[in-house]
Amino acid sequence: MPVNLSAPQAHELKPIAGLKLGIAKAEIRKPDRKDMLVMHLAQGSRVAGVFTTNKFCAAPVTVCREHLASQQPIRALLVNTGNANAGTGDQGWQDAKQSCQALAQLLDIAPEQVLPFSTGVILEPLPMDRLLAGMPACVANLDENHWLDAAESIMTTDIVAKAASKQIQIDGVTVTVTGISKGSGMIHPNMATMLGYVATDAKVSQAALDKMVRDAVNRSFNCITVDGDTSTNDAFILIATGQADHAEIDTHSAGYQVLSQAICDIAIQLAKAIVRDGEGATKLMTIQVEAGRDEQECRQIAYAIAGSPLVKTAFFASDPNLGRILAAIGYAGISDLEVDKLKLYLNDVLVAENGGRAASYTEQQGAAVMQQAEILVRVVLNRGTAQATIWTCDFSYDYVKINASYRS
Amino acid sequence: MPVNLSAPQAHELKPIAGLKLGIAKAEIRKPDRKDMLVMHLAQGSRVAGVFTTNKFCAAPVTVCREHLASQQPIRALLVNTGNANAGTGDQGWQDAKQSCQALAQLLDIAPEQVLPFSTGVILEPLPMDRLLAGMPACVANLDENHWLDAAESIMTTDIVAKAASKQIQIDGVTVTVTGISKGSGMIHPNMATMLGYVATDAKVSQAALDKMVRDAVNRSFNCITVDGDTSTNDAFILIATGQADHAEIDTHSAGYQVLSQAICDIAIQLAKAIVRDGEGATKLMTIQVEAGRDEQECRQIAYAIAGSPLVKTAFFASDPNLGRILAAIGYAGISDLEVDKLKLYLNDVLVAENGGRAASYTEQQGAAVMQQAEILVRVVLNRGTAQATIWTCDFSYDYVKINASYRS
Repeated sequence: MPVNLSAPQAHELKPIAGLKLGIAKAEIRKPDRKDMLVMHLAQGSRVAGVFTTNKFCAAPVTVCREHLASQQPIRALLVNTGNANAGTGDQGWQDAKQSCQALAQLLDIAPEQVLPFSTGVILEPLPMDRLLAGMPACVANLDENHWLDAAESIMTTDIVAKAASKQIQIDGVTVTVTGISKGSGMIHPNMATMLGYVATDAKVSQAALDKMVRDAVNRSFNCITVDGDTSTNDAFILIATGQADHAEIDTHSAGYQVLSQAICDIAIQLAKAIVRDGEGATKLMTIQVEAGRDEQECRQIAYAIAGSPLVKTAFFASDPNLGRILAAIGYAGISDLEVDKLKLYLNDVLVAENGGRAASYTEQQGAAVMQQAEILVRVVLNRGTAQATIWTCDFSYDYVKINASYRS
Repeated sequence: MPVNLSAPQAHELKPIAGLKLGIAKAEIRKPDRKDMLVMHLAQGSRVAGVFTTNKFCAAPVTVCREHLASQQPIRALLVNTGNANAGTGDQGWQDAKQSCQALAQLLDIAPEQVLPFSTGVILEPLPMDRLLAGMPACVANLDENHWLDAAESIMTTDIVAKAASKQIQIDGVTVTVTGISKGSGMIHPNMATMLGYVATDAKVSQAALDKMVRDAVNRSFNCITVDGDTSTNDAFILIATGQADHAEIDTHSAGYQVLSQAICDIAIQLAKAIVRDGEGATKLMTIQVEAGRDEQECRQIAYAIAGSPLVKTAFFASDPNLGRILAAIGYAGISDLEVDKLKLYLNDVLVAENGGRAASYTEQQGAAVMQQAEILVRVVLNRGTAQATIWTCDFSYDYVKINASYRS
């Protein structure tokens, strides 16, 4: 069961002026579930995106990159679940292009103004007939208030729909940021099998939007891992419709920090929701590595801990078998690691120092922390001022069960 | 259950002249199981070793390195299971030193002539009283024919004892190579949580032995992975007692290749036995990446596939969800990977080419291969002549079960 995560209420998700969402049940893979989403953006909207680093990236990712590079203003996003259109070769690319064309026709825009996204099974052809058949229903369904439906429509093995919303003031004007995400397996940064869409009605220059999307992703979706698998289809998209009545925000504007922080907050909430809903997750672990020489070594150690199946199964078992954390720190690849200097804490409990178990540590202390649903693993390297934080979940029978039967 | 692996018969394991093995039940962690081993080497023996790269390496690993560096001829090895003496700080180092001292006294040699090894739980102090109490029993038990007992005495979560033996001819003289290994979790190269000991009665120069140990480890124990965790305690030791009646083998001798190959064969058999007995394993997968630019890129891709929990759970489920393999290839970190050029085979079945599913491929073909207990995953990069082979196992409910309850 997801860790301290429940779906938001529809009314908690504030609409974004200039952005309408339309959902359909197109039976892409399974009957009677929402599996298609169209987002329609008003004229004047700006879009920025970050995509998977996987070299076997899916056809829609390639098409997204092409369309964003074409410099034509993006006016619509098309998302399907049930099929990833990845590992589909040239046919996959043609299918993605054709679906953009079809939607463009319905919305009276150019095909290059559409960004396509797919998530689901890899290596199977996209069922174009069903996708095309579902499009008119999506368009007929377009509405500013469909955020919760939209969050539900992009779920795959997700148990809980992921969405968040927040409002801030810029120049005395209320600005809204609302986002949705999906993903719970094949989750690893750069990027995870995850789709994330955050929209705001703020007026933002393209340069500022490009910077915000990178900052947000680096502090959120690129700080989570479920199973270390980086998917072929990941994308994080930031949309600014520009409908709010304030002066345009550029990278040096006073409003930049406020808006960027609000977008980060939403992105972090959406990213952590993915970990809370990690396949088979029963616990959320925050891995915080502090006082390192640089952020890179902190991240490396945090990921070694977060990625260790032995550490993750120990957390699942609530077993304070904490030597496994030390072992993971040891193989993180930091060649001059000073093992005698570092301290390991579980929440507030000092577990290890001077290269071994802390004299004050008792098994009872460790066991008490391990019972909790949210646990902080803190490694203090004591050799610098850099830090990094990674969120991950434990590794349970259900992870194996879900992934051994995903297609059936 | 281990994949096509059963324990050898005692009589299949040929003794090595000049090497005696003594076993005891010392109750290091659990009652009534063989958990201590002493190997006593005749004068004139030579020893070479390779150890874990984990920075949090265990105290006995540190002591082994010190004693090998001291240049005194190694005359005894001491192994205990049940406790790894890792993450035990200065006390751990003192305990390892003291245990060498105690054994040295019993065998009338210097403490620096003893190599200590420990495997088991991390972060708990070594129970010195029990270890010291068990030593006289080990010494009293010393015998050239105790190889199978020795293999059993070093098991932790292993289900099957791992040992192998083979004889070759050098200068018309019969030379024997016999080895044992242990390990089934925390298995990843450089090195795995594994202990491996291979001995021969061949007469070998130190330089040749040092080269053979590296060659053997690089082609065997450094080519396996179960869960990607590199342990704190791994060691691979090669012993040559020099009792066989042939001219000493140096790196350029005619006999070098023959002996080195025999040692490699035994090391590969022992390493694959670890994967066959991988925690929860139901299948053995050989990941072969061919026609790459260099060995490094082949290894990187092979490890990405072998390390992916999604790939491993699909194999467990016998589900030909083969897109997961493409995804793993894609995130292996090869920046200029040519996805359109590569071909993916499952045994003899061509699965993917031209960046997508092969036209000839059918789900039935994939499903038929996935049913088998031993599967070859072949990736042909078609851009060079290098290749690499990695062995791994699938990821099952039992992996989680074993590791969620290891200490209890």
